[in-house]
Amino acid sequence: MLTKINLADKLAKFSEHWSPRIVGQVNDMHVKLVKLQGEFVWHHHDDEDELFLVIKGRLTMKLRDGELEIGEGEFVIVPRGVEHKPVANDEVHILLFEPAGTLNTGNVRDAHTVDQPETI
Amino acid sequence: MLTKINLADKLAKFSEHWSPRIVGQVNDMHVKLVKLQGEFVWHHHDDEDELFLVIKGRLTMKLRDGELEIGEGEFVIVPRGVEHKPVANDEVHILLFEPAGTLNTGNVRDAHTVDQPETI
Repeated sequence: MLTKINLADKLAKFSEHWSPRIVGQVNDMHVKLVKLQGEFVWHHHDDEDELFLVIKGRLTMKLRDGELEIGEGEFVIVPRGVEHKPVANDEVHILLFEPAGTLNTGNVRDAHTVDQPETI
Repeated sequence: MLTKINLADKLAKFSEHWSPRIVGQVNDMHVKLVKLQGEFVWHHHDDEDELFLVIKGRLTMKLRDGELEIGEGEFVIVPRGVEHKPVANDEVHILLFEPAGTLNTGNVRDAHTVDQPETI
């Protein structure tokens, strides 16, 4: 028997920022949840598009040609190759859809890099 | 410059039931929105897993070994090969995440089949 996933229940299982958790797989894609606060690193992904759906709060997605403000019930898809820098002035909860194996910091390695996201 | 997608704005663009609209692509996957009311057909997908995230209302997912009640902020992933039948006693709004080209009725063709979902 299949089970359903409750986003709020999964989000209650962790509090760290910038540390994505895997909550599902759809073919070769992962569904992840992540909590953001502060400024991330500029990066891009060579081969992976990345969807950010805001569950709670307000995400600023900085791009080299401007920035987007993304609120609850809104998403943005950042195509492969496009440099981006997520910024969260207050805590933001995000659902990510992206290819399994996508590294959170893309082409960059820094203190935010998570090589093996935990499945919760 | 990228654009953000507002789910409520996209959902306001159509009213037909069981007719998915494409609202984004992430690598080889489509993000779709669909409004459901009533009973769909039993079907499965040979090669595609399918994620149903409830945006509004309450979805009953009938499975051969039981059923799930999926509310707002909850999702279920139906793996390839698993027979399922979505049922919506009242109108339900769903975000789907599935491989591009997934046919809504899977291995079945009936009046619900939509061969070419519109992009909105």
